[in-house]
Amino acid sequence: MLMKDGMNSRILLDSAKSCILASSPVFRRQQFLIRCVGGSIDHQRNFRDMQTLRALEVDSESVVRAITPALDPTRHKGQAGNIAVIGGCREYTGAPYFAAISALKIGADLSHVFCTKDAAPVIKSYSPELIVHPVLEESYSIGEECKRSISSKVVAEVDKWMERFDCIVVGPGLGRDPFLLDCVSEIIRHARQSNIPIVIDGDGLVLVTNNVDLVSGYALAVLTPNVNEYKRLVQKVLNSEVNDVDAPQQLLSLAKQIGGVTILRKGNSDLISDGDTVKAVNIYGSPRRCGGQGDILSGRQVSVAVFLSWARQHILAANSNINLSCKNPTILGCIAGSALLRKAASLAFLNNKRSTVTGDIIECLGKSLEHICPAS
Amino acid sequence: MLMKDGMNSRILLDSAKSCILASSPVFRRQQFLIRCVGGSIDHQRNFRDMQTLRALEVDSESVVRAITPALDPTRHKGQAGNIAVIGGCREYTGAPYFAAISALKIGADLSHVFCTKDAAPVIKSYSPELIVHPVLEESYSIGEECKRSISSKVVAEVDKWMERFDCIVVGPGLGRDPFLLDCVSEIIRHARQSNIPIVIDGDGLVLVTNNVDLVSGYALAVLTPNVNEYKRLVQKVLNSEVNDVDAPQQLLSLAKQIGGVTILRKGNSDLISDGDTVKAVNIYGSPRRCGGQGDILSGRQVSVAVFLSWARQHILAANSNINLSCKNPTILGCIAGSALLRKAASLAFLNNKRSTVTGDIIECLGKSLEHICPAS
Repeated sequence: MLMKDGMNSRILLDSAKSCILASSPVFRRQQFLIRCVGGSIDHQRNFRDMQTLRALEVDSESVVRAITPALDPTRHKGQAGNIAVIGGCREYTGAPYFAAISALKIGADLSHVFCTKDAAPVIKSYSPELIVHPVLEESYSIGEECKRSISSKVVAEVDKWMERFDCIVVGPGLGRDPFLLDCVSEIIRHARQSNIPIVIDGDGLVLVTNNVDLVSGYALAVLTPNVNEYKRLVQKVLNSEVNDVDAPQQLLSLAKQIGGVTILRKGNSDLISDGDTVKAVNIYGSPRRCGGQGDILSGRQVSVAVFLSWARQHILAANSNINLSCKNPTILGCIAGSALLRKAASLAFLNNKRSTVTGDIIECLGKSLEHICPAS
Repeated sequence: MLMKDGMNSRILLDSAKSCILASSPVFRRQQFLIRCVGGSIDHQRNFRDMQTLRALEVDSESVVRAITPALDPTRHKGQAGNIAVIGGCREYTGAPYFAAISALKIGADLSHVFCTKDAAPVIKSYSPELIVHPVLEESYSIGEECKRSISSKVVAEVDKWMERFDCIVVGPGLGRDPFLLDCVSEIIRHARQSNIPIVIDGDGLVLVTNNVDLVSGYALAVLTPNVNEYKRLVQKVLNSEVNDVDAPQQLLSLAKQIGGVTILRKGNSDLISDGDTVKAVNIYGSPRRCGGQGDILSGRQVSVAVFLSWARQHILAANSNINLSCKNPTILGCIAGSALLRKAASLAFLNNKRSTVTGDIIECLGKSLEHICPAS
């Protein structure tokens, strides 16, 4: 009896310990690490039908070569792409910078950033190559009574430039301020009215997941979710959990459900669908996942934006004589954008190993493109 | 009758559709894309008389060698050129930085920037090599009642330095604020009174196109328009469209019409005229047209400013014993400035291919000049 009591006491003690542990930061951190390690293994294992995945793989380097414009001295500034990044707030300035400078390093002619007034001087100071517009506003700096007029002004400032852009990228370093996100929703609506392609990433995906109508049915929208962003999107739109066993089919359903937008599901293999077809890009990337890479390697958004612009121009110039099986510029942009970033990351990792940071990958963009598609 | 009515209705409907289309952003965007794709091809074809162009070509490298001052330990700071860039506002900080730093990289001794208060800390942060004056003001930061007094103050701040400058460059990143442009008009008038050479580029050209009298008849003024800026200038001054078939003759007429200012028409071949003679610079540049290049490669303004200063010094020192067929320092400055930038851009492109950004070209300025004209 005494012994039994003793056992009960131990069980009670263990249970109390678990309670304390569960609430401790150490424990939560351990759980997080286990999820991180386990998550990716499961993720990999769960792609049971690797053959299906291989069947979906495209010759992405051929796509890069087909849509990259020839360099021609008769062309003038802006013809190789004018890209705008909507992002950058008091807290985040690195992500929009990395996105915008990458556009230039891939070969776009002009790269703009639309950010808050606090973020602008910092982003400007990273590089004189960018055109940085301090036009966005966050709730903390404005009174309730002037929100409407400021919102109109913010949207008008972006509108002045809208028609010049070949693609806008919404999300890098955008933050979660409700007023700012309301303004950005309006900017997305205006871009859509003007038929400007939109690539949505990072905090832009939070916005779109909460209001799918913003992009629903817009064929020139591209979403580039990572594992967690994809999970939330699936839960919201398909009302189910992520199914890694038949990932391509689920991605296809998701893209179809959002009215044929294109989704690039970032992962070990990048999966791409517009609700009509599914493609995979497997070219080897880097095993290292540094902070900013979320904005360039995992995000791949600007690379997609530049190639999307080029694909659109290529399709327009060639009329119907396109030597490509797929004729959707958003799919072509995703394939080429994904391939280039994976190659650049792999090259940067070779040079820098564990030290690899986002700037190293950006420095490898030009060499990677030159390797796939020599300029002359 | 019914059929005819039907046809008429259809025509009416089509016409109505066209009207709606023409005003829609989608249509305007498509037209813009078509212009981008098609426009440049026409431009190339229209230079029918390539032989004429070749006949105008000058040995630009000889001009560079003739006017570049020898490096001499007895000379003191400032003798190799003191250049001022008037530009840089809330929106643009890259362009004035690129211009000012290029002056130093070519070999000027001192390089100043006069910009707005917002732009100054950012431009300063790009490089400690520059002298940056936060003196310009934009409308948004001042009340209507104090515009006159602030304008006088702004002009006085620049005036304090004016006589020390060998050349001022007006335009890079100037923006379009009406108050700021009024102040800059006054600065141009003062520079002219002091006989300081003025190179006008970018937004400075918008100002001058709207008020040609600012520079008309001033032999030390140089305008460096790109394709679009040139088009607007021709429309305003000659009241006609750009004629690519006889481009040299039209440029000559334009320069003569503005009272003998020098115009560097940037393009595949750079064409230069002072209303008296026409020269062409064809040394191969880069096929890449990135944003900042608009301010350095296409602009070529600061390179022109430095060589103009040197040419003027050279002519002054040599009295009439100049071993050059042309004795106009603005023409000599344009020829040498154009040649050096094209060479640097070509070198940068060899190293960086599609990734070439303006900073890469600036890094090649010194090597290019050294190649044409070794320092020792």
